[in-house]
Amino acid sequence: MSNATGLQLRSTVKPDGTLELSLATIPTPAPQADEVVVRIEASPVNPSDLGLLLAAADLSTVKQSGTADSPVVTASLSPDVMRAMAARVGQSLPVGNEGAGVVVAAGASAAAQALLGKTVSVIGGAMYSQYRCLPVSGCQVLPDGTTPAEGASWFVNPLTSLGMVETMRGEGHTALVHTAAASNLGQMLQKVCLKDGISLVNIVRSPAQASTLRSIGATHVHDSTSPGFVDELIDALSATSATIAFDAIGGGTLANQILTAMEVAANRKASAYSRYGSTVHKQVYIYGALDRSPTVLNRGYGMAWGVGGWLLMPFLQKAGAETVQRLRARVAAELKTTFASSYARRVSLREALQPDVIAAYGKQATGTKFLITPHA
Amino acid sequence: MSNATGLQLRSTVKPDGTLELSLATIPTPAPQADEVVVRIEASPVNPSDLGLLLAAADLSTVKQSGTADSPVVTASLSPDVMRAMAARVGQSLPVGNEGAGVVVAAGASAAAQALLGKTVSVIGGAMYSQYRCLPVSGCQVLPDGTTPAEGASWFVNPLTSLGMVETMRGEGHTALVHTAAASNLGQMLQKVCLKDGISLVNIVRSPAQASTLRSIGATHVHDSTSPGFVDELIDALSATSATIAFDAIGGGTLANQILTAMEVAANRKASAYSRYGSTVHKQVYIYGALDRSPTVLNRGYGMAWGVGGWLLMPFLQKAGAETVQRLRARVAAELKTTFASSYARRVSLREALQPDVIAAYGKQATGTKFLITPHA
Repeated sequence: MSNATGLQLRSTVKPDGTLELSLATIPTPAPQADEVVVRIEASPVNPSDLGLLLAAADLSTVKQSGTADSPVVTASLSPDVMRAMAARVGQSLPVGNEGAGVVVAAGASAAAQALLGKTVSVIGGAMYSQYRCLPVSGCQVLPDGTTPAEGASWFVNPLTSLGMVETMRGEGHTALVHTAAASNLGQMLQKVCLKDGISLVNIVRSPAQASTLRSIGATHVHDSTSPGFVDELIDALSATSATIAFDAIGGGTLANQILTAMEVAANRKASAYSRYGSTVHKQVYIYGALDRSPTVLNRGYGMAWGVGGWLLMPFLQKAGAETVQRLRARVAAELKTTFASSYARRVSLREALQPDVIAAYGKQATGTKFLITPHA
Repeated sequence: MSNATGLQLRSTVKPDGTLELSLATIPTPAPQADEVVVRIEASPVNPSDLGLLLAAADLSTVKQSGTADSPVVTASLSPDVMRAMAARVGQSLPVGNEGAGVVVAAGASAAAQALLGKTVSVIGGAMYSQYRCLPVSGCQVLPDGTTPAEGASWFVNPLTSLGMVETMRGEGHTALVHTAAASNLGQMLQKVCLKDGISLVNIVRSPAQASTLRSIGATHVHDSTSPGFVDELIDALSATSATIAFDAIGGGTLANQILTAMEVAANRKASAYSRYGSTVHKQVYIYGALDRSPTVLNRGYGMAWGVGGWLLMPFLQKAGAETVQRLRARVAAELKTTFASSYARRVSLREALQPDVIAAYGKQATGTKFLITPHA
């Protein structure tokens, strides 16, 4: 088997308002001195990949064409979405933030040569590919006995969960709230918090999700579909003093409910009436968009509040190289415990373009995480 | 005329859901060593006073009772508002953040004695009173030839406008946006920006307000009721690179419009498609609530954005004593120029409790600022 060329998944928004997914066969670049070629064995489909992959297309319009060997999938984009996608129209874009594989070629530098034959986790985009040429700095050597499948989700979810805890500490909070909390990411965050002795208030949307979290040791788990939700949440916020939340939902009134409950909890502890509400700063960071409807804030929580976007890469940039190194080392050391991921299904690059498979991962439902295995 | 007692305006939320405004006659305290007694000659009715004064009561229900000498005004509070006011029910609260007057008695300390007979601007609450006993630190001696009426609005609006500029700089922005921009505060902010060479994008709600601002030298003035508003705003944001806004409106979609326009302006300058939107951080601080309806955010501006409350006192606390001293000195030096206020009407404490007067200042309309003169 030569690695001179390899398949690569591509996503293109066409000027006529169509999304096209296809497989390109591309030459594998020869590595420069400080680069290596990694045979990608596993790459997860994260919510953060789906924006680039599916371009917010209408998934009810998915159609398959092409051949079995070279499938092509199309779907329609609404005019609103097309406006938002203007900057990428006509560009054939590769997808996939992270993955893991084996180093099969290396540049001349000692650092690159040292990686030859090693199993590495990688970051840098275009991971839904059979081969990737990457700088040494984009590779993390995995401990012996770790498989690429175990190392594939080493970056996005683990560093996001650690980044939330770092942000919490950096902004002066001592406990936190997480929504859509039964996700792979949410379970990691709960494991990090248990290990580090941090109180975490989990908000989920079904009794089954609540059970999942309780089974890994979560104590504060609240189902937003339950009639007693608001009162339970206030009690949990009073007990934990959590004043920062990370919200994967984004739309609707959940962020507002959290801020309101934080204010009620803060006022329970306040000694005197304050005309501008409590002076405790209450923060919600929106890091996902499971609900794309508008965020509605009634501002019934004084003036000490903030809502904003939170994204991993800008956080890491602000945190600096030393912090990133510390967090990466922790992930590598705890990859099979704290940061273990589980997948509903493994699919090849071709299978990833089947309409029923797209429908499944496009749902972003908790418990339906997919792993792409480009050489299957 | 003795200063042994004086009138003081009081606001009380009663358990039956009624707001009651009245005048109390209270003894003037004897000043401690580091205190002075100020005969209050002028105190403005700021939007930031109205929350405490009117308690979000339904102003269509205002009724007058009591006597001409000792008027009492009542109005109804909705059940929602009553819940929010729970912590102040039954308390007879004095009102009025700032004012100016003459020091008529002083404690034994040298600092207090030095103020005897001086005209001073004061801060510390309860300024809708004939006499106030205050610490020396709450007094700012006015330059010779400055009247109490000229010095009454020395703190809230001037320091808010300077605080906005300090916040802009402190968070790494270079130009700013202001809404409800033709207010006294807005005009001050424009004068500060002209003096300091900072680009300010003013958003107003009528052609008359636009003229007011242009007449004091504003170049970027945009009327949100005009059909070309959004395009004009985008052009102004492109020209100025303003990425932070201070919004007095709060409710509705204006904050969202500003963030959206900032994103479009940022993307005009971007060189490549970024799947998470522009990496330029876009911030809106809500510091008022002229529109009490919910803030609606459609989040169509990537992940680098924030919306939150902004309040003067917490800002000053965070800024520290040295910065506050610098800002106060600037205000005193420019009180008749940059920080000059204008008033629609001067009223006595008794007049401030007349239903038609309450209706006028309760509207919070631009150009209807009231000055209370407690000894008139």
